[in-house]
Amino acid sequence: MGEDELGPTARTTLRRKPERGRHDRATVHAVLDAGLVCHVGFAVDGAPVVIPTTYARAGDVLYFHGARSNRMFRVLAEGAPVCATVTLLDGLVLARSAFRHSMNYRSVMVFGTAEEVTDTQEKLRSLAALVEHVAEGRSADTRGPDDGELDATLVVRMAIREASAKTRTGGPSDHAKDLHGGAWAGVVPLRMVADAPVPAADLADGVPVPGYALDYRRPGPRPGP
Amino acid sequence: MGEDELGPTARTTLRRKPERGRHDRATVHAVLDAGLVCHVGFAVDGAPVVIPTTYARAGDVLYFHGARSNRMFRVLAEGAPVCATVTLLDGLVLARSAFRHSMNYRSVMVFGTAEEVTDTQEKLRSLAALVEHVAEGRSADTRGPDDGELDATLVVRMAIREASAKTRTGGPSDHAKDLHGGAWAGVVPLRMVADAPVPAADLADGVPVPGYALDYRRPGPRPGP
Repeated sequence: MGEDELGPTARTTLRRKPERGRHDRATVHAVLDAGLVCHVGFAVDGAPVVIPTTYARAGDVLYFHGARSNRMFRVLAEGAPVCATVTLLDGLVLARSAFRHSMNYRSVMVFGTAEEVTDTQEKLRSLAALVEHVAEGRSADTRGPDDGELDATLVVRMAIREASAKTRTGGPSDHAKDLHGGAWAGVVPLRMVADAPVPAADLADGVPVPGYALDYRRPGPRPGP
Repeated sequence: MGEDELGPTARTTLRRKPERGRHDRATVHAVLDAGLVCHVGFAVDGAPVVIPTTYARAGDVLYFHGARSNRMFRVLAEGAPVCATVTLLDGLVLARSAFRHSMNYRSVMVFGTAEEVTDTQEKLRSLAALVEHVAEGRSADTRGPDDGELDATLVVRMAIREASAKTRTGGPSDHAKDLHGGAWAGVVPLRMVADAPVPAADLADGVPVPGYALDYRRPGPRPGP
């Protein structure tokens, strides 16, 4: 296992459709960087909870943040085992048989534990990264957190050490016996787009719309091999 | 609590920003029906796993399906506690302060346990519903599962009994002291769109593209109150 590889461990080894799996850092990072929402799973009082949340990646670390008053976030900060999953949907795969229907997607699962970020400088950097992850350039246009806001915010970090990516691209793969039917088969490509920015009701006249809001984009899937 | 309400229980009661929470069936169902991917969390060997998967709703039941050979899916079928979360991202909320940045979204969490669907008729209906959930009308255009495919597929059902919806709409809510700065603030609306359908490489000439593929749409957020 080279240093560009993450795992695989027992739980990141794909038993099902291993051809869709990747453990290289570049693929894992690319999916994480393209997503906006992460689904973070951990146990609270012995039962699983999956919460959608924003995140940012810096090197081999994922950052999440929430209100310190959020009980679930405190469980995270206390070092509970975590599975953080990011999924991007790229298309519907409509096959001739119901069984071969599928989706094109990019997905990453990161396993590990989180810990609170207590160093003020790292906390400030990670909060800026959380804004930058959503819109590159935005953090320079915002007022950073004051002491009260900083105290009220819990930031946790999670190492991206045990992770896997799973992707599917391309058209349906029908059984030969199904090719003769009359039904259409193929892919309906899906992507997220931004509409024209809506200014805040209390925005002063004449404030220019920044480029990151005017032409907002997220990275799509990379062309297949 | 009327019969149109789901819960709230201790874990679906929103402590944070309760004004964003809803427990009525209509809102929960609308979000579930608009989504395409569910993040299902449960414990495997004591550690949380969050897998993205397709789903369908029929009344107060959620259906998931996977390969019977999928170990994780078997854990689900054995009745492990589950949290199923569906999240739809509707926009980026860019405030003047980093602290007030947010997202517009629709999200539902369903807590409970799943069980295998063993009745063949319910299994066939739920598999058709899984196709219909993705594209209404598609199941009539596909070959249904044969006995071997049916055996290889594990379908689980989960009652939508303990569930909550959380949504945010609208613009940023900045602190009065931040309104004087020169930065732009507002919302970048996001939505998923479908591009032109891509026919399968082995599709015969002249097969018409069905309407559900040609003009594919998912429901957006309902206008705010």
